[in-house]
Amino acid sequence: MPTLMPIGGAIDQENPALISEFIRRSGCEQARVVILPQASELADTGETYKQQFLKLGAAQASVLEFRSRDLANAAENLEPLRHASGIFITGGTQMRLSALFGGTLFEQELLVAYQRGCLVGGTSAGASILSKTMIAYGRGGPTPRERIIQFSPGLGFTDRFIIDQHFRQRDRLGRLIYAVTCHPGVIGLGLDENTAVVLEDDDRLTVYGSGAVTVVDGSQISASDIAEVQSRGAVAVAGLTVHVLTQHSTYQRSTRSANLPLRALKNN
Amino acid sequence: MPTLMPIGGAIDQENPALISEFIRRSGCEQARVVILPQASELADTGETYKQQFLKLGAAQASVLEFRSRDLANAAENLEPLRHASGIFITGGTQMRLSALFGGTLFEQELLVAYQRGCLVGGTSAGASILSKTMIAYGRGGPTPRERIIQFSPGLGFTDRFIIDQHFRQRDRLGRLIYAVTCHPGVIGLGLDENTAVVLEDDDRLTVYGSGAVTVVDGSQISASDIAEVQSRGAVAVAGLTVHVLTQHSTYQRSTRSANLPLRALKNN
Repeated sequence: MPTLMPIGGAIDQENPALISEFIRRSGCEQARVVILPQASELADTGETYKQQFLKLGAAQASVLEFRSRDLANAAENLEPLRHASGIFITGGTQMRLSALFGGTLFEQELLVAYQRGCLVGGTSAGASILSKTMIAYGRGGPTPRERIIQFSPGLGFTDRFIIDQHFRQRDRLGRLIYAVTCHPGVIGLGLDENTAVVLEDDDRLTVYGSGAVTVVDGSQISASDIAEVQSRGAVAVAGLTVHVLTQHSTYQRSTRSANLPLRALKNN
Repeated sequence: MPTLMPIGGAIDQENPALISEFIRRSGCEQARVVILPQASELADTGETYKQQFLKLGAAQASVLEFRSRDLANAAENLEPLRHASGIFITGGTQMRLSALFGGTLFEQELLVAYQRGCLVGGTSAGASILSKTMIAYGRGGPTPRERIIQFSPGLGFTDRFIIDQHFRQRDRLGRLIYAVTCHPGVIGLGLDENTAVVLEDDDRLTVYGSGAVTVVDGSQISASDIAEVQSRGAVAVAGLTVHVLTQHSTYQRSTRSANLPLRALKNN
């Protein structure tokens, strides 16, 4: 079953339960994880994750490092994706990923791996890149304002959800509302730090982690002035549906339904 | 066969051959054309096109006008799309189209019409909106610069081509190169004014009109610094393939081949 696992950045290093969940969803002790560090400009990003994945029980973890588009068409770099049960994309700058992988055989192979059921996930930039039209840059603030974000074409694992990260920590509700109002067919997912969703079949998602996931559904927007506002003015929009979901809450796109986990009643 | 016909704006009113070509591709004297004026803020835009389509020989032409998202889910506005042989989207502001139609039944019905072979075309904003990730705003100039454009989610008839218009007239080569370099899997089409392409099966295109179509193919980009440049600096990119095509030239995406029309040799 095609499954994505975007994470909102800043994974808790004392209690890396999200990495453990990634391993569990990649086949538990059979997990073969390929780490893509290309969003990062730091030399040791991939290796740090590799050690963490191995320590937490993945059978295999390897870093697939290259930085030229030629090598994104080379057979030696396509082969590891064919054997992976999980592909993990690190943080950094999401445009590095689209500029490097876009239009290459490597990009095609990533989409093939996703379709055959290999878990594809990532944190921060590695979460944003999963969308077809992604948020590339932007400013913070609670109010949607004209041009508060710059979109760019992502890797396109989903065109139904647009993913933002470091969500409450960087005060990004305004920009996510802007993104959804631009084209209300897209559902916005604002992932707090150390918080993730597991998205199955591009439809059903479950929340994991210590923060919240803010779901912004624009399908019931009755009106907005987004095409008229100029000079970074505030954008008006009526009829957004918003859900704030925490661990084990679920959301289904096809039915537009959010469900909070059942809590057992206390015995007195 | 799914067919798109984006036009670069400023259709020649003395010699509206592009409108005649639109009618021919919509079934000649059987053409039933639906005009969508929602990108425009002028009250008579739709009616002006309607008169032109009828004068040039379309069997039927009607303006489908509404400006609220409720009405983009109303059966009365879906029905005309089911009987159209051509759908023509006027110029104006492309964000008006995505903010109004995005996520509605009307958007779905447009895509269904396209898939069943109804010609879908438009001019200026009506051309840009056809792309999955579209160019929403931007600046002119020959050099690609950081954030020279703002993308936004379009209506998504094609995710293989990104369309720009008023191309030479507004000096937009820099921004089209920028767009392609962001994700080199997307092919840039820069349409001059009074110039169009007919794009069949999301693969083969033929050029019509008095100007040129600039095709920017990024698949052979060897390197760029687009993810590193800041503060509107100039972007470096190596290995673009560019074709400048005029009337009756063709281009095929699957083979990356451009062909100029054969010219008969003169007898001396």
